[in-house]
Amino acid sequence: MKYSFKNDYAEGAHPLVLEALVRSNLTQQNGYGLDEFSVNSERIIQQKMKNPKAKVFLVSGGTQANLIVISAFLRPHESVVSAATGHIFTNESGAIEATGHKVHGIENTDGKIRPADIQKLIDAHQNKPHQVKQKMVYISNSTELGTIYSKKELIDLYQFCQEKNLYLFVDGARLGHALTAETNDLTLEDFGRYTDAFYLGGTKNGALIGEAIVINNENLQEEFGFHLKQKGAMLAKGRLLGIQFQELLKDDLYFDLAKHANEQAMKIKEAFKQIGCDFLCETFTNQIFPILNNNQIDQLSTDFDFYVWKKLDEEKAAVRLITSWATSDKIIKKFINEIKNLK
Amino acid sequence: MKYSFKNDYAEGAHPLVLEALVRSNLTQQNGYGLDEFSVNSERIIQQKMKNPKAKVFLVSGGTQANLIVISAFLRPHESVVSAATGHIFTNESGAIEATGHKVHGIENTDGKIRPADIQKLIDAHQNKPHQVKQKMVYISNSTELGTIYSKKELIDLYQFCQEKNLYLFVDGARLGHALTAETNDLTLEDFGRYTDAFYLGGTKNGALIGEAIVINNENLQEEFGFHLKQKGAMLAKGRLLGIQFQELLKDDLYFDLAKHANEQAMKIKEAFKQIGCDFLCETFTNQIFPILNNNQIDQLSTDFDFYVWKKLDEEKAAVRLITSWATSDKIIKKFINEIKNLK
Amino acid sequence: MKYSFKNDYAEGAHPLVLEALVRSNLTQQNGYGLDEFSVNSERIIQQKMKNPKAKVFLVSGGTQANLIVISAFLRPHESVVSAATGHIFTNESGAIEATGHKVHGIENTDGKIRPADIQKLIDAHQNKPHQVKQKMVYISNSTELGTIYSKKELIDLYQFCQEKNLYLFVDGARLGHALTAETNDLTLEDFGRYTDAFYLGGTKNGALIGEAIVINNENLQEEFGFHLKQKGAMLAKGRLLGIQFQELLKDDLYFDLAKHANEQAMKIKEAFKQIGCDFLCETFTNQIFPILNNNQIDQLSTDFDFYVWKKLDEEKAAVRLITSWATSDKIIKKFINEIKNLK
Amino acid sequence: MKYSFKNDYAEGAHPLVLEALVRSNLTQQNGYGLDEFSVNSERIIQQKMKNPKAKVFLVSGGTQANLIVISAFLRPHESVVSAATGHIFTNESGAIEATGHKVHGIENTDGKIRPADIQKLIDAHQNKPHQVKQKMVYISNSTELGTIYSKKELIDLYQFCQEKNLYLFVDGARLGHALTAETNDLTLEDFGRYTDAFYLGGTKNGALIGEAIVINNENLQEEFGFHLKQKGAMLAKGRLLGIQFQELLKDDLYFDLAKHANEQAMKIKEAFKQIGCDFLCETFTNQIFPILNNNQIDQLSTDFDFYVWKKLDEEKAAVRLITSWATSDKIIKKFINEIKNLK
Repeated sequence: MKYSFKNDYAEGAHPLVLEALVRSNLTQQNGYGLDEFSVNSERIIQQKMKNPKAKVFLVSGGTQANLIVISAFLRPHESVVSAATGHIFTNESGAIEATGHKVHGIENTDGKIRPADIQKLIDAHQNKPHQVKQKMVYISNSTELGTIYSKKELIDLYQFCQEKNLYLFVDGARLGHALTAETNDLTLEDFGRYTDAFYLGGTKNGALIGEAIVINNENLQEEFGFHLKQKGAMLAKGRLLGIQFQELLKDDLYFDLAKHANEQAMKIKEAFKQIGCDFLCETFTNQIFPILNNNQIDQLSTDFDFYVWKKLDEEKAAVRLITSWATSDKIIKKFINEIKNLK
Repeated sequence: MKYSFKNDYAEGAHPLVLEALVRSNLTQQNGYGLDEFSVNSERIIQQKMKNPKAKVFLVSGGTQANLIVISAFLRPHESVVSAATGHIFTNESGAIEATGHKVHGIENTDGKIRPADIQKLIDAHQNKPHQVKQKMVYISNSTELGTIYSKKELIDLYQFCQEKNLYLFVDGARLGHALTAETNDLTLEDFGRYTDAFYLGGTKNGALIGEAIVINNENLQEEFGFHLKQKGAMLAKGRLLGIQFQELLKDDLYFDLAKHANEQAMKIKEAFKQIGCDFLCETFTNQIFPILNNNQIDQLSTDFDFYVWKKLDEEKAAVRLITSWATSDKIIKKFINEIKNLK
Repeated sequence: MKYSFKNDYAEGAHPLVLEALVRSNLTQQNGYGLDEFSVNSERIIQQKMKNPKAKVFLVSGGTQANLIVISAFLRPHESVVSAATGHIFTNESGAIEATGHKVHGIENTDGKIRPADIQKLIDAHQNKPHQVKQKMVYISNSTELGTIYSKKELIDLYQFCQEKNLYLFVDGARLGHALTAETNDLTLEDFGRYTDAFYLGGTKNGALIGEAIVINNENLQEEFGFHLKQKGAMLAKGRLLGIQFQELLKDDLYFDLAKHANEQAMKIKEAFKQIGCDFLCETFTNQIFPILNNNQIDQLSTDFDFYVWKKLDEEKAAVRLITSWATSDKIIKKFINEIKNLK
Repeated sequence: MKYSFKNDYAEGAHPLVLEALVRSNLTQQNGYGLDEFSVNSERIIQQKMKNPKAKVFLVSGGTQANLIVISAFLRPHESVVSAATGHIFTNESGAIEATGHKVHGIENTDGKIRPADIQKLIDAHQNKPHQVKQKMVYISNSTELGTIYSKKELIDLYQFCQEKNLYLFVDGARLGHALTAETNDLTLEDFGRYTDAFYLGGTKNGALIGEAIVINNENLQEEFGFHLKQKGAMLAKGRLLGIQFQELLKDDLYFDLAKHANEQAMKIKEAFKQIGCDFLCETFTNQIFPILNNNQIDQLSTDFDFYVWKKLDEEKAAVRLITSWATSDKIIKKFINEIKNLK
């Protein structure tokens, strides 16, 4: 069977996470997120962010986190601004619109949006109340193209949002990977300070399932539980989420796993560079997008699975390779050997 | 007071329409669209289209027509494709999304969309079920830029939609103006044949209010009344709509009024051409978009009101001028005089 | 043809209303509710209520008013409490639920609800956040059974709502009839003081269409226009609504018409009483519900149309008779004659 | 710490389920429900039901299952009928209404509804299109009161639904407990035959999370995946659900666990009967509702946790006790001893 670089959720959970589930299995716990592990996870996140007023809500997936946060924060006539490459704009089967809200997609080349882009959109929506009102900015970090925001970029966005009365919400399905990238200068603390809300993704970083929604803006915390319940996100056995996040966060396993994934990706990237390969965009996280010719793609496909991301011309395409906490040195070595043998 | 060329709904109704309201005022009628006038309007439209199986539903405005048709026809996971200039994409305050559906906006220069544009969008949404499913194409005729579709363009679109299992829905807020434009080769009959549904706009063509939704696709007619009621569109005194459409349609007053509006616009267009003016796009309906310099705009603004539509540079902008059934020869003469005096 | 007592919207508009439309027909006006007449209608209502801070929004129908007010005021997890006989609970084809909100229906015998009923409902919904949060109380005055609230009842409800952090919203489709009933002790001023919002119905009291939504609670006024637009309620020719309300309200024509309707109903009621008839509930507005046997119903049905409201047993049923501003003395006389001849 | 009889989800998963997760942890699998385990779970369910055309979709919780099934099956103007005690009517924070659909609640004493109840509701909604259209019947088995449907009752309901063009959907959060109750005469095969859709609950019967939605009606299977995705229910690691259901179903562990829970409950029930206790309603599944006086409740509360379900008067209340796959003989013995000591 081929080894898959198609995504970072092909395996189960990190063994320590499973052990924690087994260990705690027979203790009785309160349901619906009131178990000791969920409570503890909130405390750990508050401490790591040095923001004791933040509230944490654990849910089972990213689309779920996005649709609940956005529909809970916005009033009916308000819209959310995203990169056109953003997950909510293009890969959630209309989940946000299904809650009643327009998503604006801003064209971009690196998965990121900047204040000037948003300002232009706002300028084009001044015919009130005939045009929808922008009220939230949604970004991903790392982005769907594997790129990351710098500290300056995040602060600029947040200040812009503050001035324009917009909420800033960060999709952190791969926040671990962003924060452990070699070029990163942001910390979890920054996310507690320069966002209204964000989430820490578990599914793509060692958990079976789980995203930890963190709401910093106190005005937006109130009655959030109702929205979880109404959207079917409040697990009876919330312990399943609590145990996993407690295990991942208590000793920084979460960041170790993400760092491992990034490092494996960087090794592959380096190998492609060695043979003179270009990339769709330069990334330092666990997603890389080398540009290959059709022969090279065929060759690599013999033993490995990955997505052809974007055809560039008849001869060439960018492929997407994703590594994870579970990508072993042995596999990397084997893959790099194949790269070296590419023509 | 300035004369306004800002829109085609600045006056009330054509006097014959008001007379019909007065004449019928004291006869008792059934409520909720079951009055004799609404029934009669449906029959007249069926006859004009030579499509006795079409169903007609009268509603009070265009946004209402759009949101009801779209939400009634689509299932929750289906989306609608529009020009980025389309009314539903940009000027209805998120009305379609508020019913749960994504609207895709296709960039364009003339307000129109073509099969190739739609195909490209469909190609970019093949990752099912992660991406939303396109199920309807929405066009306006005349468009928001005053342009119109040719018979070939409409048939091409309809055939494409049939092949791709998409509904074709036409926003006809200004369908009268489109069908009476000098360059038009479409008939009402064509709209009964080459669309799944469309509406005939009354508000912008001599009625106080009212749009006549026509559903040709018999599968989509069923239980449509529930949607009218649920969205607050079923007027107790549906007679108000029925009387107006009967009066406008029985002797082609509807088309006479639209033709008048177009002719007045063409006179203005000709005057601008005479002084060497360019246009944002060439139109033959009641909306024209001459490109003027700031001085010219100021000069014309002394006695006339209109929108500056699009700044082109520091010196120049396209303005939008709209005529209506009520635009008199006297006003046109006066305005043309002003144009002649422009520097 | 039979004369219909089925509803109060079988005729067009009061002649003075039509005259006002004709008179103003050719003056150019701003669109979308910014015409001078709509602005003036707001001022008149503010003055009559002695509440200059109230905001008025004119829409075309009652279901539309209900769904816009409720969806604009509530957040996604909040619900509205209604009588089980309330229009929103049973006669709007799920319009409120279609905007995402649960409607609770409280069983009752007279169309009204009281604080104790609501408290009981709240008590049964304490398992938060698993149960929906009640945030609004909706009442109709006059009710769907023709009954009215007394001043004490309204104040009690409002104080209860204030204590419980609930909005009080009054459906006034027939508010004119309530305020001119012989047993009424409420004033328009009271509705400006003891409600968060209400509307004054025009459709059932002399207008062609139109309901005037009045928002007293200043926190709820903000950005309301967006909701009108998004739900398709913002008429391009808002003047149609403005002119009618100005005409109806400026000299109290509105109240004169309602009083006339009530008086005609009372004459019929008296005639039924004379022959020893019972009523489903005692009313003093333009809706009466005499209990008749099948023979009597058949007899009256020869020349008159009305609804059989509720079968009581094999022999008897309550019928509903509605009078309007247009119900003439001649018709009343004829109908009373028929009543006298009933066996 | 007290032992909790508050619910059947206080512990984690059955040890065999955890072992299966550990065993399969490092094999790479396709995401989003395309893993071999999910595929296999579908096949097992099809085989057990002898219905190879049924489709199975695994989701994480009951509210999620309910809202997706109902919103996917219904068109905007259609409603669902439930017992007033039904989970969707009263305990899902308006989840169904948030997707746009009215839920009708039928009053009852035993958690069940019958054709005659539904017919009465339909009869009261004949004023179309002003009243919402009933299109689905939702029942729970076992019900929220622990009762179960007999084979005759299910077939009667299904035939009624077929005649009335209603879908029948069964909430099987505790279907295992229903099917293993000593008074049960239904089989899984019956649920494949006499329902349009139902789900098999895992969360309350030995899984960490998971409900298996089974769609029998082929017309309703199409494109169901879009709805899962749009509502945030499509887990990247769908394997988490697939592995659990495969483990629970392959050797009937699912039914063994439910039977155990029922038996433990029956032992408690018998003990209460021995001391002369009455019950709110007689049940044969894992929920029992003995009626106790306040002293008895206090006494039992010393070492055990449970809900006071319904106050009956100042002195007495029905409490709810729930057992699970994890309730040990030792605990039962201890609790029965306490019961014997009650005054």
